[in-house]
Amino acid sequence: MTANSELDIAKHLDEHDSIRAVSYAPGVLRLLDQRELPFTETYIECRNAQQVSVAIRDLVVRGAPAIGIAAAWGVVLQAGLLDTAGETISAASLENAINGLNAARPTAVNLAWALRRMRAVLAADPADPLAALSAEAQKIQDEDLAANKHMGALGAARLGSGVGVLTHCNTGSLATAGYGTALGVIRAGYSSGQIARVYAGETRPWLQGARLTMWELVRDKIPAKLIADSAASHLMKSRAVQWVIVGADRIVANGDTANKIGTYQLAIAARRHGVKFMVVAPSSTVDMAIDDGSEIEIEMRDAAELLSVAGRRTVVEGADAWNPVFDVTPAELIDVIVTERGVVERPSVDAMRRLF
Amino acid sequence: MTANSELDIAKHLDEHDSIRAVSYAPGVLRLLDQRELPFTETYIECRNAQQVSVAIRDLVVRGAPAIGIAAAWGVVLQAGLLDTAGETISAASLENAINGLNAARPTAVNLAWALRRMRAVLAADPADPLAALSAEAQKIQDEDLAANKHMGALGAARLGSGVGVLTHCNTGSLATAGYGTALGVIRAGYSSGQIARVYAGETRPWLQGARLTMWELVRDKIPAKLIADSAASHLMKSRAVQWVIVGADRIVANGDTANKIGTYQLAIAARRHGVKFMVVAPSSTVDMAIDDGSEIEIEMRDAAELLSVAGRRTVVEGADAWNPVFDVTPAELIDVIVTERGVVERPSVDAMRRLF
Repeated sequence: MTANSELDIAKHLDEHDSIRAVSYAPGVLRLLDQRELPFTETYIECRNAQQVSVAIRDLVVRGAPAIGIAAAWGVVLQAGLLDTAGETISAASLENAINGLNAARPTAVNLAWALRRMRAVLAADPADPLAALSAEAQKIQDEDLAANKHMGALGAARLGSGVGVLTHCNTGSLATAGYGTALGVIRAGYSSGQIARVYAGETRPWLQGARLTMWELVRDKIPAKLIADSAASHLMKSRAVQWVIVGADRIVANGDTANKIGTYQLAIAARRHGVKFMVVAPSSTVDMAIDDGSEIEIEMRDAAELLSVAGRRTVVEGADAWNPVFDVTPAELIDVIVTERGVVERPSVDAMRRLF
Repeated sequence: MTANSELDIAKHLDEHDSIRAVSYAPGVLRLLDQRELPFTETYIECRNAQQVSVAIRDLVVRGAPAIGIAAAWGVVLQAGLLDTAGETISAASLENAINGLNAARPTAVNLAWALRRMRAVLAADPADPLAALSAEAQKIQDEDLAANKHMGALGAARLGSGVGVLTHCNTGSLATAGYGTALGVIRAGYSSGQIARVYAGETRPWLQGARLTMWELVRDKIPAKLIADSAASHLMKSRAVQWVIVGADRIVANGDTANKIGTYQLAIAARRHGVKFMVVAPSSTVDMAIDDGSEIEIEMRDAAELLSVAGRRTVVEGADAWNPVFDVTPAELIDVIVTERGVVERPSVDAMRRLF
C-alpha cells in the first residue's frame, strides 16, 4: 500500500465518530457510565478527585487510556477546588488526591503513567499551576485521540478493499479518548470505503463485544454482526472476513502480544484460513524489557465470573471454573502491529527494535 | 491399547451414572424438565401422546436419542388409554397420536426413526399390541443405554492414563437414555481412573455446557471446570488437556463431522497443540449417502438468540447477529470416531466404509 492511500483515508477520520466517554468542562468531569451500557446512556458528573477515583474503581470508566485521561482530569478538579478555596496548588497539597487516584485500579499501566505526567507538571513549579495542570490533562487526552486517528489511517491503509473484518472485546471510543485502537482502524476502514463487513465477537465472560462494541457500532452507524466467540472459525471458513483486528494489553520485544482471552484462538484460526491478523495499540503498550510471551504473567480471575451471565447465575451450585482473562498470541501468528509510531510487518525481535 | 483395558473399563460402567431424564412406569412418562436446569430439578408427568408431543416441542426433553425414546413411550401411553377404554389398538387408532409426535420436532432424525420402529410393531399385528409396543419402547431405550456404555468403554480405552479432557455442549444422560456419548466416554474414563481432569466449554449461545453438562458432572461427582469457549486454546497451551471429546449431529462418508458450533474451532486448536480429537456418536448418526462435509447444510438460527443471554437482553437495540448452530470439522482434524459398532481411527472414506 502507498502513502497515498493513507492520505486518502485521513480525509475520512471524522466520520462515524460520535462517541466520547470522558469530557471535561471547568469544574466538572462527565463520564459515560459503561456499567449501564447498552441499556441506558447515563452520565456521571465528578467534581473532585475522590469522585473520579470511585468512578474508576467501580468501572464507570474502563479501558486503560480512558482511565489515565479521567485520572488526569481528577487532579485538575482537585486543583480547582484548592484554587477556589484560596489554597496553594502544589505537589504537597495534591498528594492525597493523586495517591487516591493511583490506587483506584492498581494494575492499569496508563493510570500511573498519566499521573506521573501530572506530577511532573507540579514539579516544574509553574506560575499558574491550575492552568498548567489543565493544559497537561488536555494534552494527554488530545494526544491519545490523535494517536488513535493516526493508527486508524495507518492500519486501514493496509487492509485492501472490500474486506470483511472481525474484532474482539472493546477497543473503541469507550476505552480511549475517542475513536479507539483496533476499532479506530475499523472506523477509518469503513469510512474510507475499504471495509465492507464488520463482525464482533461477544467476548465472554464480560461480553465487552456484545455490550460495548456493538453499542458503538450501532451508534456510529457502522453495520455489523455479533457472533458467538466459538463461531469465528466457521465465519472464516465461509470467507466473510479477510482480517482479524484486535487491540493489545502488552506487546513484548519479539512481538508476542497479550490481549483479551480468545485472541490467541482467533489468531490460530486466522492462520489456518489465510485470514490476516492485525494488532493495534499505542506505543505505551510496548514493553521491550520482556523478551517473549512466555514471561508474561496471565491474570486469573474468580470462577464466579463464568458461573453467571449478565448478573444471573447459569451454572449449578458446587461447580468450578477456570477463568484466565488474557492469553498470549505468538508473533509468528501476527501479520501487522500498528502503533502511532509506525507499523511493524511480520513482527520479530529485529523488526520491533527498529521501531522501539 | 488392548482389549484387556476395555474389559477393565467395563467393570466401572455403573459408576458416576445416576441421572435418567426419561423414565416410564405403566400409564405415566416422567421427564426431567431441562428448561429449568440447573436452577430446579422439576419432573413433568405425561399421561398421553399429546402431552409428550408438547414436552418435546417445548424442549422439556432435548437431545436426539432422548427425544426418540420419549416419543416411543408416548405411543405406549396412548395405546394404554385405548386399552382402558376397551378400544382396539391398531395403526389406524394410533395414527393421529403418532403423527402428532412425529411433528413435534421435525428435524430430529431419531424421532422419526423411533416412531418407524413403533409403526413396524403395529404392522406385524401382534396378539397383545400394548405389550408389544411397550416391549419395543423399552428395547429402544435399553439399546441406547447399552450403546452408550459400550462406546464409553471403547472410547475410554483409547485415552491413555492420567489425561485431561475438554468437552463441548451436552452429550450426557440428559441427551440420551442415559450415560451419554462423549460424556459417556468421560464417565467411563473417569470411573476407571484414566481421566485426571475434566473441562467443559460453556457453549454459547445456548449454554448447554454451562447449564447441563456442569449439572451432570456435579451431580455425578466428577470434578470438572467450566471454561469460556474462547479459553480453549490457552487451556491447551497450558498442557492441561490431552483430548477433546465431542458428540456429533451427522458424520458423513469421509468422516467429516457436523456438530455444535465451536467444535471446528476446538479441532483446529487441538491439532496445533498436539491434543487428540475424539468424536463419539451412535451409528445412527453416520450418513454414508453424503460424500463430504461441504454438502452438509448448516442451520442458521435467529439473531435474537445471541442478543440475549439467559433470557436477558445484553446487546443494544438495532444490533444484528450471525448465528450458525453447527459447524463441520474436517476428517483430517479428527483422530478417532467411536460408535457402538466400533472405532474408526484417522477417518477416511476407506476407513469409514470398512465399518459402515
